[in-house]
Amino acid sequence: MKFNLAAKDIHSKARAGTITTDHGEIQTPIFMPVGTAGTVKSINQQQLKNDIDAKIILGNTYHLYLRPGLDILERAGGLHQFIGWDRPILTDSGGYQVYSLSKVRKIKEEGVTFRSHIDGSKHLFTPEYAMDIQRTIGADIIMAFDECTPYPCDYKYAANSINMTHRWLKRCCTRFDTTTPKYGFDQTLFPIVQGSVYKDLRVKSAEFIAAMGREGNAIGGLSVGEPAEEMYAMTEVVCDILPYEKPRYLMGVGTPINILENIALGVDMFDCVMPTRNARNGMLFTKNGVINISNKKWADDFSPIEAESDLVADQVYSKAYLRHLMHSKEMLGAQIATLHNLHFYLWLVKTAREKIMSGEFYAWKNKMVTILGNKL
Amino acid sequence: MKFNLAAKDIHSKARAGTITTDHGEIQTPIFMPVGTAGTVKSINQQQLKNDIDAKIILGNTYHLYLRPGLDILERAGGLHQFIGWDRPILTDSGGYQVYSLSKVRKIKEEGVTFRSHIDGSKHLFTPEYAMDIQRTIGADIIMAFDECTPYPCDYKYAANSINMTHRWLKRCCTRFDTTTPKYGFDQTLFPIVQGSVYKDLRVKSAEFIAAMGREGNAIGGLSVGEPAEEMYAMTEVVCDILPYEKPRYLMGVGTPINILENIALGVDMFDCVMPTRNARNGMLFTKNGVINISNKKWADDFSPIEAESDLVADQVYSKAYLRHLMHSKEMLGAQIATLHNLHFYLWLVKTAREKIMSGEFYAWKNKMVTILGNKL
Repeated sequence: MKFNLAAKDIHSKARAGTITTDHGEIQTPIFMPVGTAGTVKSINQQQLKNDIDAKIILGNTYHLYLRPGLDILERAGGLHQFIGWDRPILTDSGGYQVYSLSKVRKIKEEGVTFRSHIDGSKHLFTPEYAMDIQRTIGADIIMAFDECTPYPCDYKYAANSINMTHRWLKRCCTRFDTTTPKYGFDQTLFPIVQGSVYKDLRVKSAEFIAAMGREGNAIGGLSVGEPAEEMYAMTEVVCDILPYEKPRYLMGVGTPINILENIALGVDMFDCVMPTRNARNGMLFTKNGVINISNKKWADDFSPIEAESDLVADQVYSKAYLRHLMHSKEMLGAQIATLHNLHFYLWLVKTAREKIMSGEFYAWKNKMVTILGNKL
Repeated sequence: MKFNLAAKDIHSKARAGTITTDHGEIQTPIFMPVGTAGTVKSINQQQLKNDIDAKIILGNTYHLYLRPGLDILERAGGLHQFIGWDRPILTDSGGYQVYSLSKVRKIKEEGVTFRSHIDGSKHLFTPEYAMDIQRTIGADIIMAFDECTPYPCDYKYAANSINMTHRWLKRCCTRFDTTTPKYGFDQTLFPIVQGSVYKDLRVKSAEFIAAMGREGNAIGGLSVGEPAEEMYAMTEVVCDILPYEKPRYLMGVGTPINILENIALGVDMFDCVMPTRNARNGMLFTKNGVINISNKKWADDFSPIEAESDLVADQVYSKAYLRHLMHSKEMLGAQIATLHNLHFYLWLVKTAREKIMSGEFYAWKNKMVTILGNKL
């Protein structure tokens, strides 16, 4: 993986760059749609490529490990082959879902034992196994196995947790560096900064992670319930420590406003289920604010979903039609809303990049954050 | 509406023709995907047009009347505008769903009172109102309000029922002929032959319907549980009476084999929920037979869904991936399977047409009906 910085905003820490992987280039800042179980819910890979122009998507190790399982993924030739997607993929380490989805889980130095949320079967994820699994899934960018602390989290727990996360990281790196990719293209491992909302822990973790010298770095454990201001404070502290010349990935963030604010702090990569999950609940993100399409007020609004968008679905389908589909619980509602929201998120980061290149980012960002929160 | 016959098979009663509507031409034989509530479930209108090349789709009057309702449809400028579909649409009269979906319904000479399956509200459909509703929905081809008898149905009930259906037809025609389209394009009304599985009643009904002199005619009350041989016997009797130079529409039929056999008897138009509904349950129709993609045997079959198909989804997604999506209850499974099945149904009628034109239909049909029933 390579990362080249093309421009830096003069009024903020925002940067524009290009990540190069064996599956193609990704211009940053970038948003990565979440394809949990090998599918970005409700849309297909042609739509992702042609309608949304997604440059990279996410897969969730926990879900893919449980279903379809490593045997199928390996025999398919990896996740790209299995799902028919030839652009970059990033996988998380599985840790986050183990903590959030699995009812029974136990964290020990060795790793985490948990029971599948599907069938209750018992499993053990260790840092080494998380690397092996991600080698088999075959994503271009894979993530270290860490503990994502909840919010709130007491200081002592968070302090102990980053120490374990750092020990786990060394084990991840050792395993990663002594194994090879399985499908003929390169993989790279991103470590993850933790430390909850404690500045000194974030500093300590960021310094540790920076010293590992990997090709890119991530910030985890944010957007887990803390106030946005705390998130921004942590991102700022961490971005100032993580290497300037390497991409920075803020995991699981967030709203369009969160994304713009974090771009201004020097983040390059984002993922979040918000545009896809909220789409399925009828919430649309637009350039003018947020629409709850299920509201009665849209029932007779025959204007296009977003007239000035270059997404076909935004032009040919009306708000009234989308409202009807949602109201009738028709699957097409989720599809159209998902296309819309992902298209908007990718428009947002693409426009942020253009504004960084042209030196207008900061003013544009400040204008947008006052608009994007509007409820239409 | 115009209908031009282009060719007739020499070994069967199959015909190839062209229906011309204000929304474009339809080459027959044709299969019409069912878009119940203004959406062919799980796929969008661009996919219907570009991937499937559907020439005409169906809307269900009962569903559209209840949701989004006539006020919204009229203010949208009709169903075409509302859903963003500029090719022909056919609507049923609402009768069938009143009988099948509504728990409380009462059939009288005036019409049918029923309660909505959605909110229990009470409604009355009369022949006149069914015309008014379909004027408002604005389909190119609209259907007479009839009684679709169940199977089995005793002779006396069926005999009385066709008499009422015929009286209702006169009322439909009077209303239709004294009203005008609302959206600037022509509509045409098809009457429906009933008579259950009784040959003499079918003859009587077909003669009555033929004498009405409408631009096209339909056969209803079949594929409601009777053996296929009884269906074919009724279709044959009726097709021999219905005018040769007008299109014949067999409502709600059916399996790929049913379609081929009925084409051989002189049917030009078909609709059925089977390709879409069964897709959502993981049943795929292919040139080589039927696949239940949920079966374990497909879990590691990495071959394309149907390699020789010209549908992109058939080529880029494997059986193993589709099986994974179905197994994981991912919406994309329904989308891909729906695209596949509709593409197959439209391949089937398109190929039937080519074979009619080239004089090879009968032999091809006989070969196909031995293959299409295979369970793969």
